[in-house]
Amino acid sequence: METIKNDGNVKNDGNVKSNVAIKKVGIADTMFSRIDMFKFAEQAIKDSKEKEIEIGIEVDIEIERYTVPGVKDLPVACKKLFDEWDCDIVVALGMSGSMPIDKTCTHEASLGIQHVQLDTNRHILEVFIHQDEAMTEKELYEIARRRTYSHTLNALALLKGKATLTPKAGMGIRQGKDDVGPIRI
Amino acid sequence: METIKNDGNVKNDGNVKSNVAIKKVGIADTMFSRIDMFKFAEQAIKDSKEKEIEIGIEVDIEIERYTVPGVKDLPVACKKLFDEWDCDIVVALGMSGSMPIDKTCTHEASLGIQHVQLDTNRHILEVFIHQDEAMTEKELYEIARRRTYSHTLNALALLKGKATLTPKAGMGIRQGKDDVGPIRI
Amino acid sequence: METIKNDGNVKNDGNVKSNVAIKKVGIADTMFSRIDMFKFAEQAIKDSKEKEIEIGIEVDIEIERYTVPGVKDLPVACKKLFDEWDCDIVVALGMSGSMPIDKTCTHEASLGIQHVQLDTNRHILEVFIHQDEAMTEKELYEIARRRTYSHTLNALALLKGKATLTPKAGMGIRQGKDDVGPIRI
Amino acid sequence: METIKNDGNVKNDGNVKSNVAIKKVGIADTMFSRIDMFKFAEQAIKDSKEKEIEIGIEVDIEIERYTVPGVKDLPVACKKLFDEWDCDIVVALGMSGSMPIDKTCTHEASLGIQHVQLDTNRHILEVFIHQDEAMTEKELYEIARRRTYSHTLNALALLKGKATLTPKAGMGIRQGKDDVGPIRI
Amino acid sequence: METIKNDGNVKNDGNVKSNVAIKKVGIADTMFSRIDMFKFAEQAIKDSKEKEIEIGIEVDIEIERYTVPGVKDLPVACKKLFDEWDCDIVVALGMSGSMPIDKTCTHEASLGIQHVQLDTNRHILEVFIHQDEAMTEKELYEIARRRTYSHTLNALALLKGKATLTPKAGMGIRQGKDDVGPIRI
Repeated sequence: METIKNDGNVKNDGNVKSNVAIKKVGIADTMFSRIDMFKFAEQAIKDSKEKEIEIGIEVDIEIERYTVPGVKDLPVACKKLFDEWDCDIVVALGMSGSMPIDKTCTHEASLGIQHVQLDTNRHILEVFIHQDEAMTEKELYEIARRRTYSHTLNALALLKGKATLTPKAGMGIRQGKDDVGPIRI
Repeated sequence: METIKNDGNVKNDGNVKSNVAIKKVGIADTMFSRIDMFKFAEQAIKDSKEKEIEIGIEVDIEIERYTVPGVKDLPVACKKLFDEWDCDIVVALGMSGSMPIDKTCTHEASLGIQHVQLDTNRHILEVFIHQDEAMTEKELYEIARRRTYSHTLNALALLKGKATLTPKAGMGIRQGKDDVGPIRI
Repeated sequence: METIKNDGNVKNDGNVKSNVAIKKVGIADTMFSRIDMFKFAEQAIKDSKEKEIEIGIEVDIEIERYTVPGVKDLPVACKKLFDEWDCDIVVALGMSGSMPIDKTCTHEASLGIQHVQLDTNRHILEVFIHQDEAMTEKELYEIARRRTYSHTLNALALLKGKATLTPKAGMGIRQGKDDVGPIRI
Repeated sequence: METIKNDGNVKNDGNVKSNVAIKKVGIADTMFSRIDMFKFAEQAIKDSKEKEIEIGIEVDIEIERYTVPGVKDLPVACKKLFDEWDCDIVVALGMSGSMPIDKTCTHEASLGIQHVQLDTNRHILEVFIHQDEAMTEKELYEIARRRTYSHTLNALALLKGKATLTPKAGMGIRQGKDDVGPIRI
Repeated sequence: METIKNDGNVKNDGNVKSNVAIKKVGIADTMFSRIDMFKFAEQAIKDSKEKEIEIGIEVDIEIERYTVPGVKDLPVACKKLFDEWDCDIVVALGMSGSMPIDKTCTHEASLGIQHVQLDTNRHILEVFIHQDEAMTEKELYEIARRRTYSHTLNALALLKGKATLTPKAGMGIRQGKDDVGPIRI
């Protein structure tokens, strides 16, 4: 099920494990954002790798980063991460302002991100932070950290297959804030 | 009219009825939802099969399930259920929050779902539950149960042909709540 | 200008007039609607045929009907009426609720219908009835009857060519309600 | 730069100037509109031709007119004017009502018109009159006349090349109302 | 990584440096705008070239300008700058009015610009000035100047690669107004 990307010139010298599946995660981010969300995504991938190694799984994850001015520049960056940089999945990191025009911009960016996913048949995990969803900068930072971290893990799970997240279906899971949990009847 | 999917290696040993049409129903659901709507869809398919067997029809239904974080991840999951998992129809199960941003997300998901249907020429039954359409969690759960069940049956009907639902046209049918019925003049 | 659809096996036995252009009108409708709008469309086609016969025109109209749950299922039904049922034009019949979510759904359906028209280069006459445009059920029924009837005639006119409706251009024509008429300066 | 459309059978008899570039302008209009905007477009083309002849230019303009019920039928009409009638540019004439539903319809039409332009790489000059932008019918008529006339001239200018309108860039030009003019610092 | 555009007939006579990468920047602008934003874009490119020459880099930038009536005409102009004029990136300059209809138009233009980017896999830097974001004409002019200048530099940076802007990621950068800066925790 895993495709092995290999340029044909990799020498198997004993240190390099052959047949290790290499997956490429694209991470697109913006100058507009007031928080460097990339580092949280990177941390999630690092933590995930360590856990996988502990349990003996050898999927190797490479990161391609693409930085653009603002959220409206993200969709084509994601498209290029798929088409030109051969990514298997993308995490799109953005922050949205609190004025009506900002909300319109974010909506346009989200529609573009839908478009890219359907053109490429690949997932883009949209991690957007809205400046008006927190009362303080500290709280906003914490939401950004948690949402980016969780959605990066979601991206890694989706790379493994369509049922990897199924045990959590219908469980009221949130990213960036506490889970709400399932309705109990 | 029915296409038979067969890998060529199915042995007809007497137990396996040859020429039974196999249909694949994709079911996409989310971790965000507070209700495991999948089980209602599964129940509808099971009940339908039993009824069909009673009256001697032998269409076999297989289910492919795809779980994603939230509603905005559903469109590409539906696309992949068609393109990579060979589904004939998809039921998309989602729950939407009650904040304006949630409504925007749901709208973006719905536009994506339109896009997928038109790209693939196949139906996606969109089963979205809105947290503000019920006063209590119990009521919300009941809406989710009924809407999922009814729309899964609608999916099975649409698989049979374009006129299967015609006897109910113009009858004020609702899913999740009581039918309103036709206007009588 | 008219394309003759003929499967090659039609025998010209004297009763069948050869070279009669056959046009297929698709009619998509919903279970959600509280009014069976299909019958008004059918009546318009019947009445039109009779008038044409009176004046010696022999275009034959066939109807393909496709029934879906609600307005959001109409776009792909229209697409299939074109691609799988070979329709030349489609009339899409729907009723929209009066809640904000209903208006969003109708907007999504309308965007899907735009998409289908541009993918296929064929017209879809969108006949949507809004539950809040009338004070009484009787009035709503009358709007539905008149709008469906008029737009079905518009569909038949568009089938004949791009200038068939030109004599009525700029005349303030309405469907379902009285014409407003042109501004007189 | 100009493409010469010629069916190959045009005889050059002395009266017909050979190598005259023929351009086709599509004009799509509606029955819904309360003003026959087509005649203003036609006048603009006629006036433009006369001016060109005065200064010795021999570009010949042909008009293809397409009439549809309302603004939502315009996008596919424009698409057909390009694909089936070989137009080089289209002017889309519409009037929009003043109710919220009318504004939604116009928005859907405009999105469709965007779609057509990007599919065909050709301009559509959208001339939409909004019933609520004038206090009197007379004023509305005058806006319609001026906007249609100006935008038709814009269409003819765009046919000549991408820099034809450049001398007017940033000048606060309006169509249908008086120009606002540039900001002077 | 750089593609060299060369018509094959360039003679290398000593003055022409061979292997100099030529990049084409498209600039689309409008007659509607009350400010000639093009000149700010041109200045940014000129300033950038001078800086590059100082440090010995020889990328040559050519400009293609396309002027249209208003923002809704920009998307297809951008598309043509890519497809017919071979631009590598486009800067789209527009001004938006302050009425609701103007905001809708700008939204439609922005969606079209998303569409073009995803069709062509190239960036369009959207530089839109909103008449209601400033109290005075002088302030509006200054926003236009700064936003156009900054986004043109962003365009040049994106031409160099996907990580050129990475040092500024998450830094709360704004165009047209002062940077907000990163959140410090």
